[in-house]
Amino acid sequence: MSESPFIAPERWPTAITTFDEERISIRGRAVEELMGLGNFADVAFLLLSGRMPSSRESSVWNALLTASCDHGPTSPSALAARVIASGNRRAPEAAVGGGILAIGDAHGGAGEEAMAYIQEALRASKADGLSFRQLAERIVEKYRCDGRRLPGLGHRFHAVDPRTERLWSLAQAQGLYGDGIAIMREIRSALSRALGRDVPVNVDGAIAAALVDMGFEPPVARMAFILGRTAGIAAHVLEELAREKPMRFRFAFSYDGPQVEQPGE
Amino acid sequence: MSESPFIAPERWPTAITTFDEERISIRGRAVEELMGLGNFADVAFLLLSGRMPSSRESSVWNALLTASCDHGPTSPSALAARVIASGNRRAPEAAVGGGILAIGDAHGGAGEEAMAYIQEALRASKADGLSFRQLAERIVEKYRCDGRRLPGLGHRFHAVDPRTERLWSLAQAQGLYGDGIAIMREIRSALSRALGRDVPVNVDGAIAAALVDMGFEPPVARMAFILGRTAGIAAHVLEELAREKPMRFRFAFSYDGPQVEQPGE
Amino acid sequence: MSESPFIAPERWPTAITTFDEERISIRGRAVEELMGLGNFADVAFLLLSGRMPSSRESSVWNALLTASCDHGPTSPSALAARVIASGNRRAPEAAVGGGILAIGDAHGGAGEEAMAYIQEALRASKADGLSFRQLAERIVEKYRCDGRRLPGLGHRFHAVDPRTERLWSLAQAQGLYGDGIAIMREIRSALSRALGRDVPVNVDGAIAAALVDMGFEPPVARMAFILGRTAGIAAHVLEELAREKPMRFRFAFSYDGPQVEQPGE
Amino acid sequence: MSESPFIAPERWPTAITTFDEERISIRGRAVEELMGLGNFADVAFLLLSGRMPSSRESSVWNALLTASCDHGPTSPSALAARVIASGNRRAPEAAVGGGILAIGDAHGGAGEEAMAYIQEALRASKADGLSFRQLAERIVEKYRCDGRRLPGLGHRFHAVDPRTERLWSLAQAQGLYGDGIAIMREIRSALSRALGRDVPVNVDGAIAAALVDMGFEPPVARMAFILGRTAGIAAHVLEELAREKPMRFRFAFSYDGPQVEQPGE
Repeated sequence: MSESPFIAPERWPTAITTFDEERISIRGRAVEELMGLGNFADVAFLLLSGRMPSSRESSVWNALLTASCDHGPTSPSALAARVIASGNRRAPEAAVGGGILAIGDAHGGAGEEAMAYIQEALRASKADGLSFRQLAERIVEKYRCDGRRLPGLGHRFHAVDPRTERLWSLAQAQGLYGDGIAIMREIRSALSRALGRDVPVNVDGAIAAALVDMGFEPPVARMAFILGRTAGIAAHVLEELAREKPMRFRFAFSYDGPQVEQPGE
Repeated sequence: MSESPFIAPERWPTAITTFDEERISIRGRAVEELMGLGNFADVAFLLLSGRMPSSRESSVWNALLTASCDHGPTSPSALAARVIASGNRRAPEAAVGGGILAIGDAHGGAGEEAMAYIQEALRASKADGLSFRQLAERIVEKYRCDGRRLPGLGHRFHAVDPRTERLWSLAQAQGLYGDGIAIMREIRSALSRALGRDVPVNVDGAIAAALVDMGFEPPVARMAFILGRTAGIAAHVLEELAREKPMRFRFAFSYDGPQVEQPGE
Repeated sequence: MSESPFIAPERWPTAITTFDEERISIRGRAVEELMGLGNFADVAFLLLSGRMPSSRESSVWNALLTASCDHGPTSPSALAARVIASGNRRAPEAAVGGGILAIGDAHGGAGEEAMAYIQEALRASKADGLSFRQLAERIVEKYRCDGRRLPGLGHRFHAVDPRTERLWSLAQAQGLYGDGIAIMREIRSALSRALGRDVPVNVDGAIAAALVDMGFEPPVARMAFILGRTAGIAAHVLEELAREKPMRFRFAFSYDGPQVEQPGE
Repeated sequence: MSESPFIAPERWPTAITTFDEERISIRGRAVEELMGLGNFADVAFLLLSGRMPSSRESSVWNALLTASCDHGPTSPSALAARVIASGNRRAPEAAVGGGILAIGDAHGGAGEEAMAYIQEALRASKADGLSFRQLAERIVEKYRCDGRRLPGLGHRFHAVDPRTERLWSLAQAQGLYGDGIAIMREIRSALSRALGRDVPVNVDGAIAAALVDMGFEPPVARMAFILGRTAGIAAHVLEELAREKPMRFRFAFSYDGPQVEQPGE
């Protein structure tokens, strides 16, 4: 028998939750107190940001989680979860966890990058005195030069994303319509002009702008989308298990690899 | 080139979400309408059950998601997520999804089985006319005979789980304290008598009883715990990425396998 | 600031791998030595069982991993991995890890249960002196009484699974055809008689029998299937990323939930 | 009831595997034939590259999978898998899949980026006529200017990584020591000169160079590491389930968040 080259780790720090035999405290508040708020999403806000939302922020935050909650069974996260459930019926946590893995750069991940370019534009606006319209054009040009799609704009189905206007009008009604949303509107106009057709801000872009206006940092965009979508993924897994047989996915494919040899034996 | 033995699949049915170019509808309701509710958890209730909660149900449902939201960095789901984040800093969705995978039979999974035995006891109560106390004793005896721990009771840290009393008193205040919670109290008493020491109902058992009293089926227990805990897992991933260096986990271990050979070369 | 109720953990034991600044030893053997074997699968055998395979065992073990390696893009594990890759193009590890999550009770998981009933039958054979044919009939009857499919038999496509005969004839050629395979043949006959039609032993059942004859315990069946299939999943992820656009999955569905309300606003 | 805006998908193409009722063919070869090879890793090579390895390539390929197979219980992938298994004992596939999720940019992911810079340097060498030493210095300088660590070099424990020399000497013995390994040696020298201390090429860098010399593209590096490491992860999951109790991880932490309020109730 031999021992590893490591010693036992020191205590590591956390500012989220602590507990003892009798109590659990989340960001300094007793869990029993939080349970009485009647708004789980506000507790999620507290967990992610370290502070409770104002009632105005709560309204926008709940709306943006709701905007993310589901987009039907063909979204990669819901579909992946259902396919996993079709092979693995005893571990629904594997199906939900697996669905979340599909929330990547092409699905639900645009918000983080959108928050970054919005924040950078707002900083540049202060430093250079450029107008939002000028900044928006600069961003559109930069992505076009790089040959990349602008994250947060465009949608494979929706010519106008119904969630975007709703979220932003709620933000306006709550006094939380700020520079983030304003510059995102300019970016939408600039991109539509550049492409010669109307391009919608999609739900990722809408959420990104609203999160900037509530003071969040970019990594929160991904987490907000994941938390909202987990509700929909869970519903799809329950439906798959309740309505469908195991191993039901039978897609048509065509094989175009090397010619199949006839086995001699 | 050859073709698979399958033809293209038929349309498959779903009762959750539908959409067209202009609209997204969840369980028959426009997403814009749901976004105005100010309560994301109610939309999750709708997704999972097919109906909107009453305001009384909303209060208990939000409380039980909050009760599940975090238990610090040593819970397997939070710890697994942080370890994954320490190796994989560009894919936070992998850390959150991986954390959910730890929500299994030993962690957060007891609620489903607890709902099943509560429902069975309630059915037996109607059929056999046994009292809740008699039924509780039967359940405790059955698990003890099988040499199994009773899911939903006992906790590795808490002598009394602060979340349990709070959830049940909220349910009582909302008129949602029903036979599920009542029988769980009897089970607790019966188990404590059998073991000669006080055993608490843990958060899984508390939620299970409350979900039975709101008319849910057992698989929802796992999904409610997962949804609530996703908020905490997300916070731990953000903290890990913000505060800690990659590859930081260095635990002490001792090797007790076959003696290590000295390589000849 | 407060401290958790835990003290730092003690060293925990492992018998798999140890290392210091200069060396890495796996089950007591220097990794450099193992690298010279020219057979990675043998090292996997060592990792999982604690001993090196004989050359006869190596032949059967490599064959059974190969038998598990892929079954085209419609298998749940490959399909889930491809769907995840379609949403998440920067984290191929998420797609591979997510594909493995589909290897559950209905897909690739039958081997573990099959090993358990084979082992139990072999024990019963020694204890009761029943013939393999009698034992096989007892197993078939038990599953039929419970209304359950017998794990390891039957296949959704293959009337005869080409992998089964090949694996067992390799085992025979290597002198590793033992009671496990023999009793599985009897179970196949018994089930075919009971159902009045030929039912094949599928790859899970074939592997289960071979693993019993090499002295493995049931949990290894799942791990062998996972390890073999990881090669195929990885190939599907690379193909998805190389050949397909993001977000390409567009399946037809029909919505049969509550009627969609027309939003008033 | 309404229908989705999609029609059923067309057949989608694959060049990996096809099957009918009687046969399964992988890259054009009958699975029974591949099962007779006695070398599962060669089949993985075929799956990932579309061709069978030569016997020389097989030797190096098997060695590099073996080099990746395990690094003890403190590696993030093994630790994450064990933590997941401690909460989820009925779904070992969740533990293995979850372990793979930790194979990201900081753990096992450096090979892909290393292959990219090696390939780029080799192209530049042909175009500009620069020596390998000059190219190596350019790469080191570029990463140092960007303030980034050079992927594939350095190790948190090993001053010399025992796997690197072994892999490269096997490649040399097999006539597969090419420009990829040669330039990696120069990069190591250049970095060591720049830092004023010896920096080892780690296993990711060693594999990256060997894969370049066998003609692979960068995404294969991640897949090779994942496939090799799956063997070790599987062994850790089996050991966790066999030797340890559920929910065993109890790390010491210190809470430094907002002061904990005493709940009034």
